[in-house]
Amino acid sequence: MDVPSTALFTDQYELTMVQAALKAGTAGRRSVFEVFTRRLPDGRRYGVVAGTGRVLDAVENFRFDAGVLDFLRRRGIVDRQTLDWLAGYRFSGDIWGYPEGEVYFPGSPIMRVEGSFAECVLLETVILSILNHDSAIAAAASRMASAAGDRPLIEMGARRTHELSAVAAARAAYVGGFTSTSDLAAGFRYNIPTVGTSAHAFTLLHDSERDAFRAQVESLGGGTTLLVDTYDVTEAVRTAVEVAGTGLGAVRIDSGDLLLVAHRVRQQLDELGARDTKIIVTSDLDEYAIASLAAAPVDAYGVGTQLVTGSGHPTASMVYKLVARAETDDPRDPLVPVAKKSSGGKTSLGGRKWAARRLDEYGVAEAEVVGTGPVPGELADRQLLVELVKGGAVVAREPLDAARERHTAARANLPLSATQLSRGEPVIPTEYVQGRSGS
Amino acid sequence: MDVPSTALFTDQYELTMVQAALKAGTAGRRSVFEVFTRRLPDGRRYGVVAGTGRVLDAVENFRFDAGVLDFLRRRGIVDRQTLDWLAGYRFSGDIWGYPEGEVYFPGSPIMRVEGSFAECVLLETVILSILNHDSAIAAAASRMASAAGDRPLIEMGARRTHELSAVAAARAAYVGGFTSTSDLAAGFRYNIPTVGTSAHAFTLLHDSERDAFRAQVESLGGGTTLLVDTYDVTEAVRTAVEVAGTGLGAVRIDSGDLLLVAHRVRQQLDELGARDTKIIVTSDLDEYAIASLAAAPVDAYGVGTQLVTGSGHPTASMVYKLVARAETDDPRDPLVPVAKKSSGGKTSLGGRKWAARRLDEYGVAEAEVVGTGPVPGELADRQLLVELVKGGAVVAREPLDAARERHTAARANLPLSATQLSRGEPVIPTEYVQGRSGS
Repeated sequence: MDVPSTALFTDQYELTMVQAALKAGTAGRRSVFEVFTRRLPDGRRYGVVAGTGRVLDAVENFRFDAGVLDFLRRRGIVDRQTLDWLAGYRFSGDIWGYPEGEVYFPGSPIMRVEGSFAECVLLETVILSILNHDSAIAAAASRMASAAGDRPLIEMGARRTHELSAVAAARAAYVGGFTSTSDLAAGFRYNIPTVGTSAHAFTLLHDSERDAFRAQVESLGGGTTLLVDTYDVTEAVRTAVEVAGTGLGAVRIDSGDLLLVAHRVRQQLDELGARDTKIIVTSDLDEYAIASLAAAPVDAYGVGTQLVTGSGHPTASMVYKLVARAETDDPRDPLVPVAKKSSGGKTSLGGRKWAARRLDEYGVAEAEVVGTGPVPGELADRQLLVELVKGGAVVAREPLDAARERHTAARANLPLSATQLSRGEPVIPTEYVQGRSGS
Repeated sequence: MDVPSTALFTDQYELTMVQAALKAGTAGRRSVFEVFTRRLPDGRRYGVVAGTGRVLDAVENFRFDAGVLDFLRRRGIVDRQTLDWLAGYRFSGDIWGYPEGEVYFPGSPIMRVEGSFAECVLLETVILSILNHDSAIAAAASRMASAAGDRPLIEMGARRTHELSAVAAARAAYVGGFTSTSDLAAGFRYNIPTVGTSAHAFTLLHDSERDAFRAQVESLGGGTTLLVDTYDVTEAVRTAVEVAGTGLGAVRIDSGDLLLVAHRVRQQLDELGARDTKIIVTSDLDEYAIASLAAAPVDAYGVGTQLVTGSGHPTASMVYKLVARAETDDPRDPLVPVAKKSSGGKTSLGGRKWAARRLDEYGVAEAEVVGTGPVPGELADRQLLVELVKGGAVVAREPLDAARERHTAARANLPLSATQLSRGEPVIPTEYVQGRSGS
């Protein structure tokens, strides 16, 4: 591992702010921070919360051990008093948030972190890193999953992104609706199904394509997937069926006009009697390419670059803002809403917020309602935030499949236009209800 | 750490290809794989090699330990014979490559990996993950550094990308010309200088902006950087100088029309006698925004999102291709060039390649020359590939500053138009010299 603890996934100013607040006697003020985004990526209809489970792991492991403290001391980043405080650091507050897989909109309070100022401000960077990355990938995955319909989607993007981003990306893609991944580390860490085909190098290694196919089938069985576009696709398909028989599992096409080639290959496979042999296509697919292949005889899609780079939006632009805090260290003091007020267009709404999704008479989402103060009675059972950490203890672990299923259900409850790929506004508006804010 | 070894940063097909090749008796054929890109990101004039040092670490740590082997066995991913082979895996071949920080162009053989087919094919995913990510970030950093001229650039993007991508991004940004990072993990792991300012939350925590500034100055000294755009910038600057005195280190502006605000703040600081107080600007900067502030009284730039997402190009689209291999296991056998030949536009040039940069009479680069066979005499001392790993042992470790300095020198030797920010073709052409290919 590159660093010994999640505590260093932190911007330096968080530690120096803690130092200054400790000295000023303000570090202990009860504070509420919220994670939200001011806007969705341009043209997107909804966002997808992903990474929540990873945030819980990161908060649990957020410890300043001897190696970290020694680094901070050697560099002179914070003073002795602060080092002592950091040495005993355990997050002891509460975290509420949208459950993983849920959809979100501009202003949705995706996560709410409460505790002393010092213990909460430290978590800013690591929480945002995880949610911004994972949610960006899950949003792209969700659009691709909509476009793919019932056809399986294989995540194959590890080689196009940082090696550990890749692991998180496979996880987020699974939440967003992907079926499996080629990334073994993601299979190991998150128990996601892993799959594999074959590369051009394997064909080129052998003296002929036939030799390569034979080697693969003899070792991996007839259910394997043969890559048929190293030389001539038609010849390769013929050879593949000759070598593997009509029970061949699948062929993969990785180049060319996929629509045209898939039709030709399907026809050829059928003529050769390999009616159950599937066709997997790969080659810089995104949600639009997937949608354009809806009528093609394609059985599965392998997606790489566009998935791991968020299909044009590699980050979710979430921010972590102080929205309320007490005026003294006294835990009984009421919270005062706070918000930045300069004229730069980055203002936000103060106060600790709740959120609920209002449904129409058919059970379809019609608004994201975000408010301070009491929750209106008719929205009480539609609230979105759930308790994730209570008094420093994680209380909401769940299997990844729960998040994946939640996402499918949440997306299905959005207006139909949510899954249109064309650019548009958020599919439901965010409405604000200003209540008596504060505690 | 999410996984116990770099050996799982691997696509499943690499392991199943090894299994099939072991069974077919082709796994031991001497092979040459090359990393290259078919094109630069649209409009970019040059690429920047970054991640080389991280590749060397990953190759050294590429071991199938008990935990990994147990996972592969439980999942049934490869057979017994392959598990045994993996258990003893150590890369024993040779790696040559462009040294870190060097520039590259379409077709440049950025890295060349030689050894048995099986030992080389396994490294595909992890090598590409590292080089594709780090080079994408370094390329963006290099453009920003050109635009910033002599002004320092602070990397602040950790919150916008995966928490470990962030560490690698800070490293790549440093290679590309950034001065420092806010990411403590990057400081810890790579000894990059770290810096920090303050957040709006710190101001909002306190009863007044004056209280916040006083708390910060009392703890961190007058050399600190005060954030002046939480409420009213003009008032904040006045308060900042009243609190810290005319020796105040810097003010940070994070919103608004930076050009306008920077001029006003500079004038105000000068009038207040704080002539040496610096102005740091942040707020969704990219290379174009940095360039547009060239005439503004700005002393340093903090860059986040656009840096860690590669300023529109978050991955470098490098591929890892088998370009030559022997026809038997005999190590004395000559290498035969190989290349994919289908009509999908993804063809590439076979044969083990050298590369050299031809200079004009003024010492300015005029062509990237890539060839197979003997190197022409006049290019012999302009060769680009250096030995990185010899017989499995890393032979080319270097401090990160060496890569950073190399990049500055390499960029300075390109034609002047390389550093134009406008879209264009690669600044020098790639020329191919076809020699007697093979061993």
